[in-house]
Amino acid sequence: MVKAIFFDVFGTVVDWRSGIANAFDQAFAKSGADIRARDLADAWRAEIAARLLETAGDAADEARYVPLDTTHRETLAKVLDDADLAHRLGARERAALERAWESLRPWPDSVPGLRALRREYVIAPCSHGSISMMTWLAKSAGLPWDLILGADLARCHPPASKVYTHCAAAIGLDPGEVMLVSAHNRDLDAARAAGLKTAFFSRPKEFGKGQTTDLAPADAWDVIAFDLLDLARHMEASLI
Amino acid sequence: MVKAIFFDVFGTVVDWRSGIANAFDQAFAKSGADIRARDLADAWRAEIAARLLETAGDAADEARYVPLDTTHRETLAKVLDDADLAHRLGARERAALERAWESLRPWPDSVPGLRALRREYVIAPCSHGSISMMTWLAKSAGLPWDLILGADLARCHPPASKVYTHCAAAIGLDPGEVMLVSAHNRDLDAARAAGLKTAFFSRPKEFGKGQTTDLAPADAWDVIAFDLLDLARHMEASLI
Repeated sequence: MVKAIFFDVFGTVVDWRSGIANAFDQAFAKSGADIRARDLADAWRAEIAARLLETAGDAADEARYVPLDTTHRETLAKVLDDADLAHRLGARERAALERAWESLRPWPDSVPGLRALRREYVIAPCSHGSISMMTWLAKSAGLPWDLILGADLARCHPPASKVYTHCAAAIGLDPGEVMLVSAHNRDLDAARAAGLKTAFFSRPKEFGKGQTTDLAPADAWDVIAFDLLDLARHMEASLI
Repeated sequence: MVKAIFFDVFGTVVDWRSGIANAFDQAFAKSGADIRARDLADAWRAEIAARLLETAGDAADEARYVPLDTTHRETLAKVLDDADLAHRLGARERAALERAWESLRPWPDSVPGLRALRREYVIAPCSHGSISMMTWLAKSAGLPWDLILGADLARCHPPASKVYTHCAAAIGLDPGEVMLVSAHNRDLDAARAAGLKTAFFSRPKEFGKGQTTDLAPADAWDVIAFDLLDLARHMEASLI
């Protein structure tokens, strides 16, 4: 029996791409610089992903854990340098941009879906995001988590299976009593390997119009839904 | 400006004494044993307090951190032995009793007070309780926390100031941006020493009729209220 449901957040619960693009537009609004906000958002996301991949081997060494806040700050610096835009941005605008991940909008089905699931299950983010980032994002987006779990607590990043087993243990559960929900098949691979139940839905607009990845389930996940609200209906109908 | 409000929980938010007494009554209901449930609740609470005091010096050494779940289990064993009751309790009843702290009832003002505060502030328990214990207690009692902080995260117990500074840092705040709410003056001493704002109200029935401690504020705390709902009114009126 599933007692808790963990969630990937960026992409699965909130729409990072349009939010980060808006944040770039706002940050440069007064600068007169002619920017391509979506391209900058994509570039930032790609730098973050590359950095996380680079450090994935550090999962066993808690002392080498780097909170995502630091990664966001450092990769933003690179993106701005690469685009020759760093000098066009004041300190205040830059600070706001660094924290733009804390003000992203949920997909329309996310909040009602989470509310419905919260009635029966403990729900928590279990993602790359730091406790701080997830706290302020939840406050801004109205995400009704029971508590905040994830990388900070396990001191390593997904898809290391330790993130999932450590966070399950933190709330007194066996991995098999927890389900991970993600719009990214790779997360679910890791969660299944760690003994968790798995649920997938696609976010076909996460990466914009030309998205080619994660449009469909890559394996026979325990639940395959249309979106988060549909997942809640599945869970209500078939208590796993 | 206060951005987050931390809470002591046992005594301040939930009524542990009548809940634990009820749990003893339920555990021994079929045993035929003639127990004094309130005395057992008081004895258990006293053993826990003694153990926490005994290990208070370990606060600097994370490796010596003991989650409250373990302390509850071990001190319950002592209380049952001392009362010559251990052999009257089945394994299932004993397991339920060990986790009775996760099913305590909130004081009548607690949930409406927390709901009101949550509109303006990040609210979180920051107490001895483990993440697991606080998660299931919140689910059972309907405590609408934004996230769960406390001893497990800092790997030491209140009143070590590290609990408060570590948990403030975990959500990206300076100690002065956080307020601790407690019905125990000693907690507020520690929080103030760590740089937090402080709020007190008395829970004159926490220890039963003959309570002599914490009936009044022992210092000029930043907010002194009647109960949690009254605290919410204070905070609304005078944005600290």
